[in-house]
Amino acid sequence: MRIFAAMLKNDLILRAARGEKTERTPIWLMRQAGRILPEYRAVRNSLSGFKELVETPERAAEVTIQPVDILGVDAAIIFSDILVIPEAMGLTYEMVEKKGPHFPKTVQSKADIKALKIADPSDLSYVYEAIKITKTELNGRVPLIGFAGAPWTIFSYMIEGGGSKTFSKARRLLYSDTELADQLLNMITESTIGYLKKQVESGADMLQIFDSWAGVLPSEHYSRFSLKYISRICDAINDVPITVFAKGAWWALPEMKDINCHTVGLDWNMNPEEARSLFPNKTLQGNLDPCALYGSLDTIKSETQKMLHAFGDHPHIANLGHGVYPDTDPEKVKYFIECVKELSSH
Amino acid sequence: MRIFAAMLKNDLILRAARGEKTERTPIWLMRQAGRILPEYRAVRNSLSGFKELVETPERAAEVTIQPVDILGVDAAIIFSDILVIPEAMGLTYEMVEKKGPHFPKTVQSKADIKALKIADPSDLSYVYEAIKITKTELNGRVPLIGFAGAPWTIFSYMIEGGGSKTFSKARRLLYSDTELADQLLNMITESTIGYLKKQVESGADMLQIFDSWAGVLPSEHYSRFSLKYISRICDAINDVPITVFAKGAWWALPEMKDINCHTVGLDWNMNPEEARSLFPNKTLQGNLDPCALYGSLDTIKSETQKMLHAFGDHPHIANLGHGVYPDTDPEKVKYFIECVKELSSH
Repeated sequence: MRIFAAMLKNDLILRAARGEKTERTPIWLMRQAGRILPEYRAVRNSLSGFKELVETPERAAEVTIQPVDILGVDAAIIFSDILVIPEAMGLTYEMVEKKGPHFPKTVQSKADIKALKIADPSDLSYVYEAIKITKTELNGRVPLIGFAGAPWTIFSYMIEGGGSKTFSKARRLLYSDTELADQLLNMITESTIGYLKKQVESGADMLQIFDSWAGVLPSEHYSRFSLKYISRICDAINDVPITVFAKGAWWALPEMKDINCHTVGLDWNMNPEEARSLFPNKTLQGNLDPCALYGSLDTIKSETQKMLHAFGDHPHIANLGHGVYPDTDPEKVKYFIECVKELSSH
Repeated sequence: MRIFAAMLKNDLILRAARGEKTERTPIWLMRQAGRILPEYRAVRNSLSGFKELVETPERAAEVTIQPVDILGVDAAIIFSDILVIPEAMGLTYEMVEKKGPHFPKTVQSKADIKALKIADPSDLSYVYEAIKITKTELNGRVPLIGFAGAPWTIFSYMIEGGGSKTFSKARRLLYSDTELADQLLNMITESTIGYLKKQVESGADMLQIFDSWAGVLPSEHYSRFSLKYISRICDAINDVPITVFAKGAWWALPEMKDINCHTVGLDWNMNPEEARSLFPNKTLQGNLDPCALYGSLDTIKSETQKMLHAFGDHPHIANLGHGVYPDTDPEKVKYFIECVKELSSH
């Protein structure tokens, strides 16, 4: 599989992830394949909805490649959803237009957990197929990123049934039934390890773990119920660089030094200067405020310059501090990408 | 007005706010007057809704005092809403059952701002009346806390028209039109200063400023568009102790040292040990995870012990790290309060 890497025409992001100096800072954007692009909306509108797009490998590959062609990013990220894992475990989700994901059935008891299984990698063959098609069609232009949700974030969705302001149902379990919590977190972790390994086998050149709801946990719970499981995933995968992005979990950064990952993602509240001294041996990713792309071209340029300056000569993969907001003007996204390329060139 | 303080039978919280050693740690809870209490729900159900309750001084006073009688807290906080300020400025809000606040009209342009005014303290006479009735009925049992939203949080509501996952409309203005943003923030600040002064004149013994949406801002914007205005409010009010609670703005704590307030509120992600060394001259408030109250009595006791230990002998006002969640068992809330009283007694 690693033969692919050797064939890459642009491997900036892989070299940056390994801590090597690069001729310029590589860049990709969280949610780069998505609603910001009219070309994406056209594909999506031709299908019954988000899930059909996720489950149709040819079309998923198509929207995965769009931002490489249109925006000029240095990596593609496979178009999918973190919620395919709970689905493969036995909990079906729906994607409700403008409202987000919804699980008709949630996990509330030991009996609910008994009805679940550890995901069988063969269940998610549409993802692996999409990765293979993407790799073929990319033809080595840029690396392909695979991904999964962190166990805590997946757990939250399975308990809450959707997004939440407080995640108090999921968090309550961490005080009221730690055994149940660990049982489910273990199953998610095992499912995720199998899933990510298959993504790598299918051609993913690097991986990102998204802990979208990291920020709601007290630090002690974060170590005990999230980072522990993320760490287990990182230990199980050795073939490709892994990025861990724990949104909002600023307090966990010092502890993340010991995680077996190559890159740590920063949100826009986190301080690159502090992160540089915390992580002398890891690459950093991020962290422009997605709202900065609402500014004028001058504002975008100066904010980009400020961001690049803050990361200095530390190994860095430029990105936003969270997913690009759907109503962002694609021309401004392109300009941000151009600014990173231009301003970081040595 | 300060005659009131001298008449208080329990002034623990005021002494703690002034940094004095107290015989035990005082405690109150954010959202203590509210849905957790069946007695509150009975009053609310006898009226047309939340807003009628806020605007009917006798009933607002009644639910303000309920937690003093029922839960045994060391302070009452006037029952009201931070959104009375935008309303007094000319932007009416509705409280939608189970969904939260909604502004039918929002601020999007200079013309929208022109249609607003700096709140006239006389507009909110129902709040001052409720404070006076509460003070009379409390009869010196415990101090009464007045409050307001921080300008940035009020601004967010006025732009967004309600809650939001990203607050991207409000935040976008900070990149795209800082003049408009400052103009509105100034008006909110002036309105809030007048409002808080009148609360103090009416009998409020201390004040809290809630910056509920602090956590969405990059640190530079937080200093520039939030803390600056909070600071101006604190400078304008000298009669009573002020608490600033900037939820989620962990990065702003070092800068808050210079704010003219007595107490800094911590959410459950913030670390009391670190805050103690940051704020040698300020009292700290917080910060039990509201979800801890879903645990068993043993869990509540041990989590309370842990919290008290973390604050050590630093001047401390015990509280949750955010408002109590509405589905919390009132018996467990009472138990938490008892634990603080018992475990902190010298």
